[in-house]
Amino acid sequence: MNNIDNIIEYIEGSNDYIVTSHISPDGDNMGSTLSMYYFLNKLNKNVYYVLDDNSPQNLKFLVEGIKILKSDEVDIKDYSIIALDCGDKKRICVSEEILDNAKSIICIDHHASNDHYGDINYIDIDASSTCELVYNVLKRYSDSKSSNIIDEEIATCLYTGLATDTGNFAYSNTHPSSFEMAKNLLILGAKRDNIIQNVFQSNPYNYYKLLGEALNTLEIVDNKIASIEVTKEMLKRNVINFNDVDGITSYTRDIEGVEVGILLKEKKENEVKVSLRSKNYVDVSAIAKEFGGGGHIRAAGCTVYDSVPNVKKKVLQEVLKSI
Amino acid sequence: MNNIDNIIEYIEGSNDYIVTSHISPDGDNMGSTLSMYYFLNKLNKNVYYVLDDNSPQNLKFLVEGIKILKSDEVDIKDYSIIALDCGDKKRICVSEEILDNAKSIICIDHHASNDHYGDINYIDIDASSTCELVYNVLKRYSDSKSSNIIDEEIATCLYTGLATDTGNFAYSNTHPSSFEMAKNLLILGAKRDNIIQNVFQSNPYNYYKLLGEALNTLEIVDNKIASIEVTKEMLKRNVINFNDVDGITSYTRDIEGVEVGILLKEKKENEVKVSLRSKNYVDVSAIAKEFGGGGHIRAAGCTVYDSVPNVKKKVLQEVLKSI
Repeated sequence: MNNIDNIIEYIEGSNDYIVTSHISPDGDNMGSTLSMYYFLNKLNKNVYYVLDDNSPQNLKFLVEGIKILKSDEVDIKDYSIIALDCGDKKRICVSEEILDNAKSIICIDHHASNDHYGDINYIDIDASSTCELVYNVLKRYSDSKSSNIIDEEIATCLYTGLATDTGNFAYSNTHPSSFEMAKNLLILGAKRDNIIQNVFQSNPYNYYKLLGEALNTLEIVDNKIASIEVTKEMLKRNVINFNDVDGITSYTRDIEGVEVGILLKEKKENEVKVSLRSKNYVDVSAIAKEFGGGGHIRAAGCTVYDSVPNVKKKVLQEVLKSI
Repeated sequence: MNNIDNIIEYIEGSNDYIVTSHISPDGDNMGSTLSMYYFLNKLNKNVYYVLDDNSPQNLKFLVEGIKILKSDEVDIKDYSIIALDCGDKKRICVSEEILDNAKSIICIDHHASNDHYGDINYIDIDASSTCELVYNVLKRYSDSKSSNIIDEEIATCLYTGLATDTGNFAYSNTHPSSFEMAKNLLILGAKRDNIIQNVFQSNPYNYYKLLGEALNTLEIVDNKIASIEVTKEMLKRNVINFNDVDGITSYTRDIEGVEVGILLKEKKENEVKVSLRSKNYVDVSAIAKEFGGGGHIRAAGCTVYDSVPNVKKKVLQEVLKSI
């Protein structure tokens, strides 16, 4: 039996579940957890969605009417945990007590760093998203019953994770199977326009005013490195939250000829969050690591405790070694 | 016989062609024209790619090694014109002489405003892109010969038009068939990462400097309309071509709560190109039509002959009627 069949067999044989994911939820995290929640509900299982963190503003539309519980709100026994999109057992966003008392952990994930910590694991690091793996499970289940289990709600959740984790089909993890999945989800009623508008097309007006200011700081070094600055004064002046401007990093990477893009985001005096992106060959996670941060080869970050000009100088020095 | 079969029969029976499209080329314009050019070449036809306009910078990768001719460089007799992605005979970007002397015009297009001006027409206003229609022609041709005619080059052209006209699968014209097409084109070797980097991630540094200036003009009217201005001085100061800034329109539409986004782009004194986008319910092609332009429900354009402030006033008045 393969892992998908193991998971389906386990789910059919057990009754009580907690579904959860990693801290700092994103679209794939919430899309995969919520689709599993709906699936278990449809099978008349007893299921709780538990996550000790808040949903980002642009994903709130997905969980309207859904109660996401904190760990201390759950009273459940003899339960299994289904951990979705969580590459590291330590990042599962429930209390240690809930984690320790679970009779089993089922892990469905696509992170390369996943060490197969579950009792049953369905890990595919080539998959576009964890939502693509949940889709495979639900497809197999549907096929085995000769009846489709993916309704509009589930299709919308799965589409959200697929769209967010692939940069809406722009990243190289978009495979033919991802397009096949997108096609089927549209046919099954995924509310695509709603997803796109909420996730990608609902920036506040002030965000663009701040972007205009930030672009005035755009600088190119050696034709291959671009940096941009967002100071705490800019955030204050435009009434934008510190956590809501990370998307600006892409404006550095998306410049012709640029290999490494840097966003310097001032949190407070002498504390600068640095986001790094690369296009083709520089491993920015190694650069972030030099400053105590981390991440992926093409997207990483760190926090450096100094003024914006000094942090810029230090980070540029490090990036120049890799160019 | 349906229109696709008519076109295939015509192409097989005739030898000399000019392929062309509309003025102000975009990804679907160039992708569909170039894929038709390659197709005719593969059938050993005599074919010229004629367009009396310049390619935008971010699409130059597509036509490397291809000679796009101006009307006065062509010396050809007894030819047919294949006009791709051109909703209006007057916008076909070749000289009147070339147009008048063609023995036939074959029109392949997806613009709602198309009045079937061709001698053979294959118009589908529900199609994502003209590239999707060319794909249908080439698929039918391949099926009839039991041999696939779509090679890597053609797949790359068709993917480019599909990706650009759907906002990389974000717009509501992205149908299940569009995803099916994307899947097949990836399998057939479309150079997706190359397309994404060139089309969406290779803006010149100066483009972002200009974007910063343009964002300073961003204005919201009635919370539902956003406008942004690009003057000829901005273009000159930042050394950016008139044809290279249409993407800025999306910054107006992608604002929370905004239904209609307007880009006012000054070509010369008292000549302003207006790009219109809508999110949910306003038919911007109807607004563009009021000013002699056209397009689609969610994306349209027109040229208005007046100063930027006056054009803004006139267009806003018209948009306000639809809000």
